[in-house]
Amino acid sequence: MATLLHYPLCPFSRSIRLALSECGVEAELAEERPWEWRPEFTDLNPAGTLPVLITDERGPIMGAYAISEYLGDTADERDARLFHPFPGDETGKAEQRRLVDWFHHKFHDEVTDYLVEEKVYRRFGPGSSSPDMEAMRAGRENLRYHLAYIGHLAETRSWLAGDAMSFADLAAAAHLSALDYLGEVPWEQHEAVKNWYALLKSRPSFRPLLQDRIAGFTPSGTYADLDF
Amino acid sequence: MATLLHYPLCPFSRSIRLALSECGVEAELAEERPWEWRPEFTDLNPAGTLPVLITDERGPIMGAYAISEYLGDTADERDARLFHPFPGDETGKAEQRRLVDWFHHKFHDEVTDYLVEEKVYRRFGPGSSSPDMEAMRAGRENLRYHLAYIGHLAETRSWLAGDAMSFADLAAAAHLSALDYLGEVPWEQHEAVKNWYALLKSRPSFRPLLQDRIAGFTPSGTYADLDF
Repeated sequence: MATLLHYPLCPFSRSIRLALSECGVEAELAEERPWEWRPEFTDLNPAGTLPVLITDERGPIMGAYAISEYLGDTADERDARLFHPFPGDETGKAEQRRLVDWFHHKFHDEVTDYLVEEKVYRRFGPGSSSPDMEAMRAGRENLRYHLAYIGHLAETRSWLAGDAMSFADLAAAAHLSALDYLGEVPWEQHEAVKNWYALLKSRPSFRPLLQDRIAGFTPSGTYADLDF
Repeated sequence: MATLLHYPLCPFSRSIRLALSECGVEAELAEERPWEWRPEFTDLNPAGTLPVLITDERGPIMGAYAISEYLGDTADERDARLFHPFPGDETGKAEQRRLVDWFHHKFHDEVTDYLVEEKVYRRFGPGSSSPDMEAMRAGRENLRYHLAYIGHLAETRSWLAGDAMSFADLAAAAHLSALDYLGEVPWEQHEAVKNWYALLKSRPSFRPLLQDRIAGFTPSGTYADLDF
């Protein structure tokens, strides 16, 4: 069986846990704490990024980009009724990848990185320290702005990138779920986002994520509640 | 014919100009200044990122990630002897994508963004100001460190990701060529990197890049010299 090196609140890891489950690819989870820079881990992946999927047949596959595209490239090996991370035609795929890029880079750099980094990694990392309140304020401000954009997508489309669920939805849900764990998502002000997220949250692939618990951080009241 | 919205010193744009040319896909270039946030441009691509490939058949494709994968997905429509951005088997593709991710994100954030942003965008952008010397020092320090890693790859492999030239080489060359324009690459200290880069630089796809000129910035002596 494959092994996924991941960290529970890492949004890249979460997006791949959801994708593996939707694709019906079984993988054992192994927790890797990214702030520890374990030599055995950086020997494997010099960039020190998560997740890493260690496959039986094709060796280690590094990072959410390579893993998600690998799951697309190997879709033919699985039952055609299972999830395809990039379904449809070239125009559809381009829109899905635009949004994956947006969530895993722009949204990450402007929101998730600020809030997860400041609240969690900084506490556990070397020279444990208090959150930088300025960075957290910036992250929250950007989140409000970006939620309006996600709401616009959710209002005008069945799924964020179009008619079919794609890896763009999983990437988006990965970031929002990590932020929701920390109680940072103002769901009530974003009804369309909440409805889209509720659909994803009720899928079997989401269940293991809702059971994640980080020592020292109690999840928000909405986190594991399907009827939030 | 397709149109590519690009900026000459943007490394993402450069990687796609190289890939289009290697793939034999003709595209007219249209310069977009990313710091201007032109409303017509942000209406098209809300993230404001470059490049954007406006295709005749499939509409606009946003960003280097979506465009490079589009060129891979549509490789069957072209002569099989032409360049494939992600050649070979799944293991090979995973390594190519790991490196594309590394150059377009880690290397970009830690090197190119500091140096191109500080030297060029800051000068032309709103409230034109002098470079932040601290950021430039950090970028140069990181560049030395990362060149050692690129050198290790160039010494042990034919191309950066393995036996075949891939989009990883083009992404790497895109960043190094933008830095070389600004005279920031210490080629003499990295012989293996220089030899790998010289091979790419002499390809026809590279010629238009070597003719780029940015008003107010004379390219370094090595920039357009094939025998640098």
